[in-house]
Amino acid sequence: MNINNIIIDEIIINALKEDIGAGDITTNSIIDENQKITGEFTAKANGIICGLDICRRVFEILDEDIIFSPYKKDGEEVKTGEAIAKVSGNAKSLLTGERTAINLLQRMSGISTQTAESVRKISGTKAKIADTRKTTPGLRVLEKYAVKAGGGTNHRFNLSDGILIKDNHITAANGIVNAVKKARGNSPHTLKIEVECENLKSVEEAVQAKADIIMLDNMPAEEMRKAVEFINGRALTEASGNMDEKDLLEVAKTGVDIISIGALTHSVRSLDISLKFVMK
Amino acid sequence: MNINNIIIDEIIINALKEDIGAGDITTNSIIDENQKITGEFTAKANGIICGLDICRRVFEILDEDIIFSPYKKDGEEVKTGEAIAKVSGNAKSLLTGERTAINLLQRMSGISTQTAESVRKISGTKAKIADTRKTTPGLRVLEKYAVKAGGGTNHRFNLSDGILIKDNHITAANGIVNAVKKARGNSPHTLKIEVECENLKSVEEAVQAKADIIMLDNMPAEEMRKAVEFINGRALTEASGNMDEKDLLEVAKTGVDIISIGALTHSVRSLDISLKFVMK
Amino acid sequence: MNINNIIIDEIIINALKEDIGAGDITTNSIIDENQKITGEFTAKANGIICGLDICRRVFEILDEDIIFSPYKKDGEEVKTGEAIAKVSGNAKSLLTGERTAINLLQRMSGISTQTAESVRKISGTKAKIADTRKTTPGLRVLEKYAVKAGGGTNHRFNLSDGILIKDNHITAANGIVNAVKKARGNSPHTLKIEVECENLKSVEEAVQAKADIIMLDNMPAEEMRKAVEFINGRALTEASGNMDEKDLLEVAKTGVDIISIGALTHSVRSLDISLKFVMK
Amino acid sequence: MNINNIIIDEIIINALKEDIGAGDITTNSIIDENQKITGEFTAKANGIICGLDICRRVFEILDEDIIFSPYKKDGEEVKTGEAIAKVSGNAKSLLTGERTAINLLQRMSGISTQTAESVRKISGTKAKIADTRKTTPGLRVLEKYAVKAGGGTNHRFNLSDGILIKDNHITAANGIVNAVKKARGNSPHTLKIEVECENLKSVEEAVQAKADIIMLDNMPAEEMRKAVEFINGRALTEASGNMDEKDLLEVAKTGVDIISIGALTHSVRSLDISLKFVMK
Amino acid sequence: MNINNIIIDEIIINALKEDIGAGDITTNSIIDENQKITGEFTAKANGIICGLDICRRVFEILDEDIIFSPYKKDGEEVKTGEAIAKVSGNAKSLLTGERTAINLLQRMSGISTQTAESVRKISGTKAKIADTRKTTPGLRVLEKYAVKAGGGTNHRFNLSDGILIKDNHITAANGIVNAVKKARGNSPHTLKIEVECENLKSVEEAVQAKADIIMLDNMPAEEMRKAVEFINGRALTEASGNMDEKDLLEVAKTGVDIISIGALTHSVRSLDISLKFVMK
Amino acid sequence: MNINNIIIDEIIINALKEDIGAGDITTNSIIDENQKITGEFTAKANGIICGLDICRRVFEILDEDIIFSPYKKDGEEVKTGEAIAKVSGNAKSLLTGERTAINLLQRMSGISTQTAESVRKISGTKAKIADTRKTTPGLRVLEKYAVKAGGGTNHRFNLSDGILIKDNHITAANGIVNAVKKARGNSPHTLKIEVECENLKSVEEAVQAKADIIMLDNMPAEEMRKAVEFINGRALTEASGNMDEKDLLEVAKTGVDIISIGALTHSVRSLDISLKFVMK
Repeated sequence: MNINNIIIDEIIINALKEDIGAGDITTNSIIDENQKITGEFTAKANGIICGLDICRRVFEILDEDIIFSPYKKDGEEVKTGEAIAKVSGNAKSLLTGERTAINLLQRMSGISTQTAESVRKISGTKAKIADTRKTTPGLRVLEKYAVKAGGGTNHRFNLSDGILIKDNHITAANGIVNAVKKARGNSPHTLKIEVECENLKSVEEAVQAKADIIMLDNMPAEEMRKAVEFINGRALTEASGNMDEKDLLEVAKTGVDIISIGALTHSVRSLDISLKFVMK
Repeated sequence: MNINNIIIDEIIINALKEDIGAGDITTNSIIDENQKITGEFTAKANGIICGLDICRRVFEILDEDIIFSPYKKDGEEVKTGEAIAKVSGNAKSLLTGERTAINLLQRMSGISTQTAESVRKISGTKAKIADTRKTTPGLRVLEKYAVKAGGGTNHRFNLSDGILIKDNHITAANGIVNAVKKARGNSPHTLKIEVECENLKSVEEAVQAKADIIMLDNMPAEEMRKAVEFINGRALTEASGNMDEKDLLEVAKTGVDIISIGALTHSVRSLDISLKFVMK
Repeated sequence: MNINNIIIDEIIINALKEDIGAGDITTNSIIDENQKITGEFTAKANGIICGLDICRRVFEILDEDIIFSPYKKDGEEVKTGEAIAKVSGNAKSLLTGERTAINLLQRMSGISTQTAESVRKISGTKAKIADTRKTTPGLRVLEKYAVKAGGGTNHRFNLSDGILIKDNHITAANGIVNAVKKARGNSPHTLKIEVECENLKSVEEAVQAKADIIMLDNMPAEEMRKAVEFINGRALTEASGNMDEKDLLEVAKTGVDIISIGALTHSVRSLDISLKFVMK
Repeated sequence: MNINNIIIDEIIINALKEDIGAGDITTNSIIDENQKITGEFTAKANGIICGLDICRRVFEILDEDIIFSPYKKDGEEVKTGEAIAKVSGNAKSLLTGERTAINLLQRMSGISTQTAESVRKISGTKAKIADTRKTTPGLRVLEKYAVKAGGGTNHRFNLSDGILIKDNHITAANGIVNAVKKARGNSPHTLKIEVECENLKSVEEAVQAKADIIMLDNMPAEEMRKAVEFINGRALTEASGNMDEKDLLEVAKTGVDIISIGALTHSVRSLDISLKFVMK
Repeated sequence: MNINNIIIDEIIINALKEDIGAGDITTNSIIDENQKITGEFTAKANGIICGLDICRRVFEILDEDIIFSPYKKDGEEVKTGEAIAKVSGNAKSLLTGERTAINLLQRMSGISTQTAESVRKISGTKAKIADTRKTTPGLRVLEKYAVKAGGGTNHRFNLSDGILIKDNHITAANGIVNAVKKARGNSPHTLKIEVECENLKSVEEAVQAKADIIMLDNMPAEEMRKAVEFINGRALTEASGNMDEKDLLEVAKTGVDIISIGALTHSVRSLDISLKFVMK
Repeated sequence: MNINNIIIDEIIINALKEDIGAGDITTNSIIDENQKITGEFTAKANGIICGLDICRRVFEILDEDIIFSPYKKDGEEVKTGEAIAKVSGNAKSLLTGERTAINLLQRMSGISTQTAESVRKISGTKAKIADTRKTTPGLRVLEKYAVKAGGGTNHRFNLSDGILIKDNHITAANGIVNAVKKARGNSPHTLKIEVECENLKSVEEAVQAKADIIMLDNMPAEEMRKAVEFINGRALTEASGNMDEKDLLEVAKTGVDIISIGALTHSVRSLDISLKFVMK
């Protein structure tokens, strides 16, 4: 998996501590210490599965003897009723970890599924679907991974690995040209500079300032098309602004390179996945 | 606010670190050290606001001199276009904290709004809307708080503060009566014991076992009504199982005490809220 | 063991860091890197052993190659001079971990032993011995586990998994009936409500308020007997208030369901256990 | 206070998180947001008070507006019925922090009291009472502070700030002389070297090896007296070994410099302290 | 300061805990609780001061009443004997924090000074001096800040905010063109792509692959000049490879945009700074 | 290794998180999941190697299947061009961990090398080279370990495991004799007391006060010789004060026991070490 274990483990341990509290009293009261159990994850809806390695790691952290055997890989399609993975081992460990594992798997798969739907809508165009920083606090690394699994691409991860000049920055710097100049002078040479533009005049200034990426924010499709034509390859173009409520194909056809959609991560519908156990 | 500062601060600091990384390069490159700014949060949709204290705390943690003045209280209604709160102070601090504050506020308000809609649907019945453990890993305390702000009630917080006997526990203990007995014998006397039942036969056993709460899981309304009649006050009754896809009023009219809805927290639609700044 | 590894490991790592500081200078200065050693834990007093899994985990965390072989299980009796467990492996690891392991083992066994003595005193009655929140800060999960190992039962773990209405809550709410009503309206339906009563009048109100548990606090035995009779099964009854200084059998004979004793954890006498090593 | 805030705060926050869990449900359900309250700590037994600064810090961390006014200083005597400190502020904060504050105050005062009793027993001799590393895991800094408040002195804090050569080290190094030589050669020149001796022959070797401190472990008083005479000021002398069960005055009269007592911290009887609130 | 408090505080608290251990025994044994003191930081060598805000924060974290008054700003020149800042407050707090504050201030100022010297050497050319990831583990944010204070610019902060394709990546991808293509396809569009080239042939391929930045690694000046000419503005150029041992002006005159020097942070000579206190 | 795993792991995980951020985008974009690779560490300069176990642990933490095979032990000499260790395993893990491993290895080896040079300069005298608390914040345990690997000895680790009375303490206590008396009365009997003296008069007082160690701070060699003669074995003697700029042999010949050099850790020149990989 392309997510580093060190980061993942902190998220998972945090989640397990939150859900376990002082212990799973129900399970500890009823289930024998050595009871074995086996379970199967099944899709209850069509979608793109994501989070299987995370799921495996949840159980491993609780109990290193649990065996998790996925039938799918992250990013693959699943159909309603299809088995996704098998898990077996100590009953107490599995019952205790079940909810945390499913909560993560359903959420990540929900994001992959939603991303894949957006990608499908614009297939045939050159545009790519990207995420934003409108992610769930604490889970960004997982959510951006899920966007990639769904066929999308990632925007900057955080405030330190991308430069995005917005209206307040522009006002404070007395204009786009000056803002870009200050940003270029004070930032690592390894980062591109993006400017948020709400109209064609701003776009012209951003091109003049040699911005690397121009965000076309909340523009009608026609204006966006004109902006793309004007820019004419001198910068990457990114469509933005409540894109979940727009006709994505129409946006893509304006010729933009990237369409970034906050709703991919801020308004997620979990993919329904069940986990049924059988005592052994 | 009814959420403890110690818990909240860990979540917020974690979120800020995630979003800030090694620093807000754009803002640091362009904005003067001493620039002041003022901003206003505005609702872009109707809903129930929630998370204002969290929002204030995000800014306080970044910069103790920021002044956050809410116009609303958590749980109050907001209309599209209505101002929600004002924030003013150092421009760099505000621009750096903006995204984290909004991400939390929108998500919590989305949950409150969704909860309030469910509560409204069953108004006039005695049933209450409750949450589940299907929350976002790491944010449970905030999400359960938002459910309360929306007029709902909370189910158990985690595995150690409620006993919920499910099918695997029942199988392992050879039946409901025995499972309840083991649970009662091995757990704190301060916790109620809930049993998940999928049919009337199980309900009868749960009543016989003197369960404190009986979950009526995935039952058709008619069967649920029969269960409630049979139980007849001998236990609290809780309707459960993809409740977001059911006719909530029909469920409530069966006479159940509680309707628990996982989708309140696992499939959230953020409430759209904007934050516009003016340089001072 | 019924204590979750994730919680235990934090406690143990914290304890090891406290005791090791920048390193065990004596051992590091004198003992060869590859010296092997074997040791045996022996009881120096009669009691109930508790903490063997914790003990094993202390050594595992320091050195995964150490072999810890217990001769007993948590909750079993040990006699003066009886061997309890054997440990063998790298001498440096064992000498470095020795004190932390014994500190935990002696303390937990002290609690189990003290609990078992209280349980024995009331044998033949229906009452159970319970702990309180008067535990050592940072070790509650271990201490409550030790109470169970000694034959006791657990009271609520913390402020969020049990409702206990005390005099200040009652005053603030203008009486017991109102306090219980507010608590019931604002709390999860999964938790029982307990009311602390210091006299029969309060007991009457608590019954009227349909409290689930009534704490009979600091009552003379005769008054307690009357309270139990009055309650007559309409609520669980719990005797409380410096119970370590009372005649427990007399208390138990009043018919109460639970006797909670703060001294079980706030005033612990460690069980004397030695660990003698032999070089190999 | 001579304990550093950075260390203290970690212990207190950890303790508060343990006790508060997801929130104080009773208090949050019943007490109004702005209710004020005032309370007084009162001794329920005679003893030496310790932990007042810790107590204040518990409340400060929960709520910076709480006012804590001690009537005593750490290390001072308190009598049954005597008021110790006053605390006032927001009712919810105070009720939520009450248990953690008292748990720490009672435990620390129990240690100070027990230490002072030991100190009193040997008054008139030159010996000092010292603690050991048999402290409660996680609370060592507080417990050693309490020993000092009770008039005792501290032994090494952990394995890295003192060299104590025990039997296994001696065996591994083929004798005391060689062990001391290795320790001296491999450790910081700022630390003294102590050797544990169980008989006069070992004492002779320790003196020959120029040990800085000689521990007289589990020796009868008469043998201890001979050892002290033999050593004759060439090393500090420390009596050790179940000292809580010995006649301390007899031990002190042997002329030892230090008597170290594990029971001061491993078998603590809490000092009974109450906190009564009055609504304002 | 352009470094976020949340990140800084973690570093400082970690450093203070490391240096304070269980407490400053010397100071606690000798200095009165309420003794006031004042001190002045003085340069003992010429250089560029850096770390004053960090220094202030060290003392603030220990004791919020300490007053730190800098006479300089980060990045300004200081001369031997010149006063840099004044600090006053509680003697115990100041003596306890002294070493940590100075350790950080001297190290950061050492880096700024070393950077400024390199910058001075190439003045008059268009090249900029940049840092690398060869920083002290745990202090990167401070060290990169110090490089900026010394007039340098920052290279990528870590592995996730810049793409740098090295020989192993090239080998694994069968050539530069393919490696750049894979990187571009799988990474955020906000990051530039840099390729490490050791000869002109690689440079040609990197230009063909449309790399954004070309690192000229370990090239003789003459070859570097040819590379810069060939690239001719189609990519940024960066000179790299033991630059601390090269004639920087000669390198700069090849026309490269950036010269990155690992030694700026991996081989630091602290700037000598003293802190003398006067009792008040 | 004589450094405890628990402490080391925190440092390494912290360093890896700092360097990896949200993931190694270059490697993740280009390198196949299952690619194997092997690499060899080679010295690029003569010196004393140190940090091999740390290096191994960096890779183990990232990927437990990586095999690290050192050809040397910490403290051994390496020559330019000599192979030091081999590492093999998953290419992604190795490329991601490379920089952190080398950063630590080079720094620690730099310290060992510098220490060994100082030790060599005074060979034939009885003096030992010691470190100070002028270490890199967060890395003290590694840096002091490296000093030992280079043949030096360690001074106190932090403020709680050694007593060092400086001018401010002396002023506050009205003289050396009184300061030592207070220190001896208020500190553990296991620690030696050191007094910093800047002239012979202070040395006389320190001897009179029975200081265990006398620091001869910033004294000319001749004065130092007189001080050593005067002390005449009644205390250990330690030369201190910009010792990196002094003639160490001349200092050693004054007869001092210890020469402590801050520059060993505050002004480190990394030992150049390369790591070259070959795809398998």
